[in-house]
Amino acid sequence: MQEAEKYAHKIVKKLRIRLPDLPSAFGRVAMELGNQGAMLGDIRKVHVTSHYITRDIIIFFDKEKQISDSVFAIEKLKGYRVLSIDDVVMEIHEGGKIAMTPRVKMETLSDLRMIYTPGVAQACNYILENPEAARKYTSIGNTVCIATNGSAVLGLGNIGVLAGMPVMEGKSVILNKMAGVSCIPILIDSNDADRIVDTLETISKTFGIIMIEDIGAPLCFEVEEKLEERVSIPVFHDDQHGTATVILAALIKTLKVTGKKMEKVRIIINGAGAAGIATCRMLLEYGFMNIVICDRKGALYRGRKENMNPYKKAIAALTNEACERGTLKEVIEKKDIFIGVSSPNLVSKDMVRSMNKAPIVFALANPVPEIFIQDATDAGAAMALDGRTINNCLVFPGLIRGALDACASRITYSMKFRAAEVLASLAGKHEIVPNFMLQTIHRRIAEEVRGAALETC
Amino acid sequence: MQEAEKYAHKIVKKLRIRLPDLPSAFGRVAMELGNQGAMLGDIRKVHVTSHYITRDIIIFFDKEKQISDSVFAIEKLKGYRVLSIDDVVMEIHEGGKIAMTPRVKMETLSDLRMIYTPGVAQACNYILENPEAARKYTSIGNTVCIATNGSAVLGLGNIGVLAGMPVMEGKSVILNKMAGVSCIPILIDSNDADRIVDTLETISKTFGIIMIEDIGAPLCFEVEEKLEERVSIPVFHDDQHGTATVILAALIKTLKVTGKKMEKVRIIINGAGAAGIATCRMLLEYGFMNIVICDRKGALYRGRKENMNPYKKAIAALTNEACERGTLKEVIEKKDIFIGVSSPNLVSKDMVRSMNKAPIVFALANPVPEIFIQDATDAGAAMALDGRTINNCLVFPGLIRGALDACASRITYSMKFRAAEVLASLAGKHEIVPNFMLQTIHRRIAEEVRGAALETC
Repeated sequence: MQEAEKYAHKIVKKLRIRLPDLPSAFGRVAMELGNQGAMLGDIRKVHVTSHYITRDIIIFFDKEKQISDSVFAIEKLKGYRVLSIDDVVMEIHEGGKIAMTPRVKMETLSDLRMIYTPGVAQACNYILENPEAARKYTSIGNTVCIATNGSAVLGLGNIGVLAGMPVMEGKSVILNKMAGVSCIPILIDSNDADRIVDTLETISKTFGIIMIEDIGAPLCFEVEEKLEERVSIPVFHDDQHGTATVILAALIKTLKVTGKKMEKVRIIINGAGAAGIATCRMLLEYGFMNIVICDRKGALYRGRKENMNPYKKAIAALTNEACERGTLKEVIEKKDIFIGVSSPNLVSKDMVRSMNKAPIVFALANPVPEIFIQDATDAGAAMALDGRTINNCLVFPGLIRGALDACASRITYSMKFRAAEVLASLAGKHEIVPNFMLQTIHRRIAEEVRGAALETC
Repeated sequence: MQEAEKYAHKIVKKLRIRLPDLPSAFGRVAMELGNQGAMLGDIRKVHVTSHYITRDIIIFFDKEKQISDSVFAIEKLKGYRVLSIDDVVMEIHEGGKIAMTPRVKMETLSDLRMIYTPGVAQACNYILENPEAARKYTSIGNTVCIATNGSAVLGLGNIGVLAGMPVMEGKSVILNKMAGVSCIPILIDSNDADRIVDTLETISKTFGIIMIEDIGAPLCFEVEEKLEERVSIPVFHDDQHGTATVILAALIKTLKVTGKKMEKVRIIINGAGAAGIATCRMLLEYGFMNIVICDRKGALYRGRKENMNPYKKAIAALTNEACERGTLKEVIEKKDIFIGVSSPNLVSKDMVRSMNKAPIVFALANPVPEIFIQDATDAGAAMALDGRTINNCLVFPGLIRGALDACASRITYSMKFRAAEVLASLAGKHEIVPNFMLQTIHRRIAEEVRGAALETC
C-alpha cells in the first residue's frame, strides 16, 4: 500500500467501471486503485443489469501514470471494464460555477410592472429619501465582492485574473451554500495598489462587504489598509484573517487537548506573507507571548536588513524578544508549536525532533504541506495537522454572514476571536475543528460574530 | 369611466378583498376600482368559504386618494370587506431581487474538493495555458455588467447609485428570465468620465459585455466612446441603442402597415439626450433621410450656438438639411413622424394636427408620455404608441444573448438592424411589436444577432 499522506492528490477523474455483480467485486477495484496511490472520492451506482454493476468512482491522484496503471490492472481482471475516464473537474467548471439569478417571480406582465417600470420607481424613491434602506430593499445588504488581481492564487502563484476566476467562483459557491451570501467575483486587472483601491472604492456601494482575495503580500496589506480608510463597509482579506482565525481556533482546541498553556508555549511561524503576518498579529492580540516568525531568509528580528518590508519590520518589532537569528532549521529548535504557511517540504523529521517534547505541527502549505503529517507524527509530534483540517473555509462563511447580519462597518478582532472560540467549542471530542459540511457550524459562527459586532458598536 | 390613458399608474398596491360568492360580485369591485381610475393587474383567488371568496387584486393608480375612495365605496357594499392593503412593490423588492447562486452541486466533501482546492487548480492551470478558455470554464462568457452612476434613472433623474439599484436589479431579472444571462449590477459612485472608464476598464475581464445604464447625456457618450477604445468586449448603452433599436423595429412595422416610404417620411425627434441622439444616428444609418432633432431649446441646426455639446453638434451636421429653426411647436409642422424621447406633456393635440396627414406619433417619455395616446389619436394620428408598447425590454435580452453567444467584441449596427428587423417581423398582424413575455421572441432575436455577429467577424 502507498503512503497516501505523501501525495497532494490534486488531479481528479471520474472512472466509469463495469464490474461483476459480486460482493467482493468493488473491493478488488478499490484495492487496485489504492495500490497505485489513488484516493477514492464519491462512489455512485449508475446502472445494474443481471450480471454487472456500473459505478462512477471519483478518484484523486497525482500522476497520469497512476491512472493508466490502475486501468490496466482493473481490465486484466475477468469481467471488469473501464467504460470511460472523464475529466470531471473540467465538466463541473464548464459554463462557470455561479450565475446571478432572480429571487422574485416574473411570470406575468403585472409582475414585470412591479419589478421594473413603473412600479420600481416606488422602491427608488423610498431609497432616495432613506438611503440606509438600500440595504433592505436591494441586494446590497446580502452581497459581498470577492476581488482579486490573481497575483497569489492558492499554491499557484501569480497566474493572473482569468486563471484565478475558478477559485473566486468556488468561494462564491461556498459562501452561498454555507451562509446564503450572494458573492460576486470581481477581477481587478492591475498590480498597482492605488488603482486597485480606487477601483474598489468607486464600486464599493454595490456591496455590504469587500473581500480581497489571492492578492500577494505585501501588496495585499497596502490595499487593505488604504481601502479600509476609504470605504464604510468591512474589508476582509480571507488569506490573512480567515487563515489566522482558523489557526487560532485550532490552537485553542489543541492547547485544551494537550494541556499546554497559551502564556508559555513557544511558537514558530514559517511564512511572512499574508497568512503568516496576520496569524502572528492575531495570536499576539489574543495573548500568545512568545513567537518567532521566519521568511525564506530565516527569523525576522529587530534590525534585520535583508529582504524586509514595512510589514515585516512592524511584526519583527513585536516578536522574537530574544532576537534569535538563523534559518528555520536553526530557530525551530526548542519551540513547542510550528505553524507553516509557506511552501512544500521545508520541514524535515529531524527538525521536528529538535523541537520541545511532544510538539504541535500545523503544516498548512497548500496543496503540499511543509512536512507530511505521517512524517511529523513519526518524529514525535503530539498533534500534526495540514490544510485539509485547518482550512479557512471553516471560518469565512459564518464570519461574513455574521458581519452582514450586524451591518458591521468593520470586522474587528473581537468578532474574529469569537468566531475562533465558537469554532473550537464546536469540535467534537476527537476533533480539533468540526466538519465543514455541517451547516450548523457556519450558522453558529454567524450568530456569535453578529453578537460580537453588535456589542462593540 | 375615467380616461385610463391619462394616467401613468405608477403606484401599486395589493388589495385583499373578501366578497360574496356570487357571479357578479367581482364585477362590482372591478367597477368601483375603475370608477376611481385604478387599473387592475393580476387577480388571484386566495380563499373560498361557503359564503365568501377572498381575492388578492393588484391595482395600479396615481394618487392615494383613489385608493381610499375605492375602499370606502367597496366597503359600503353589503358583504364586501377590504381585509388588507399591502405595499406589494416594497415586499417584492425586500432583500433585493437578485442573488449570485451556485450552478453546481456541493453536497459532499468530494464535490467541494473539485469545486475548490485541490481540484480547482486543474481549471486554473488550463486557463493559464489557454486564456481564451476562461469564457468556457468560468462564468465570464455568460456574465454581463450593468453599470450605473445613477445620474439619469428612468424618469427620476439624478437620484444617485443607491436609489438606482432597484432598476439595475430589475434589468438583471429580465436578462436572466428572458435570455439566461447572469447580469451583475455595479454601482459606480462617480460623475467623472475618466474615473468611470478607469474603473470599468480595470474590472472588465470579469465580464463578457459591459452595459452602461442610466448615465445621463452627454456623460454617457464620453464614457461609451472611451471605454470602447480600452476594452476588448462590447460596451452597450441600452438607453441609447436598445431604445434606438426598438424604435427602428416599430418604424419598420409601422411603415409597412401605413404604406409610408422610408426615403420620403419627414421625422421629428424630440430629445437630444442619450435616446434621441442614438435613435437619430441609427435611423440615418438605416436609410431614413429627413430628420430634424430638437432639444428643449428647439431644433438643432448647423451653426446653432445655444445649449450645444459636441454630440449635438455632430448630429446637427448630419440632420436638418433645410436648416429649420424654431421650437418643437414650430418645427413639428408638416412632419410625418414624431418620436418623443423627452418629457411629459410637451405635445398638444394642435401640434399633432399641424403635422402631415395621418401622422405617426411615438410618445415614449417615461412614465408619462409627451402626449397621451388617446389625445394623439383624437387629433388624427394614424398610429400612436407610448413606452408601454415601444419598450427597450423587447430588444436588450436577445441582443445581449446573441452577442455573448457569438463572443462578439462589438455590438455593431448590423447586429442591431437584424434585431430590429426580426422584432418587426415577429409582430402579429394587429401588433407593431410582439408581446415581451414570449420567450421565443428573445430567442429569435438572439439567433439573428448571433448570426449577424458571426457574419461580420
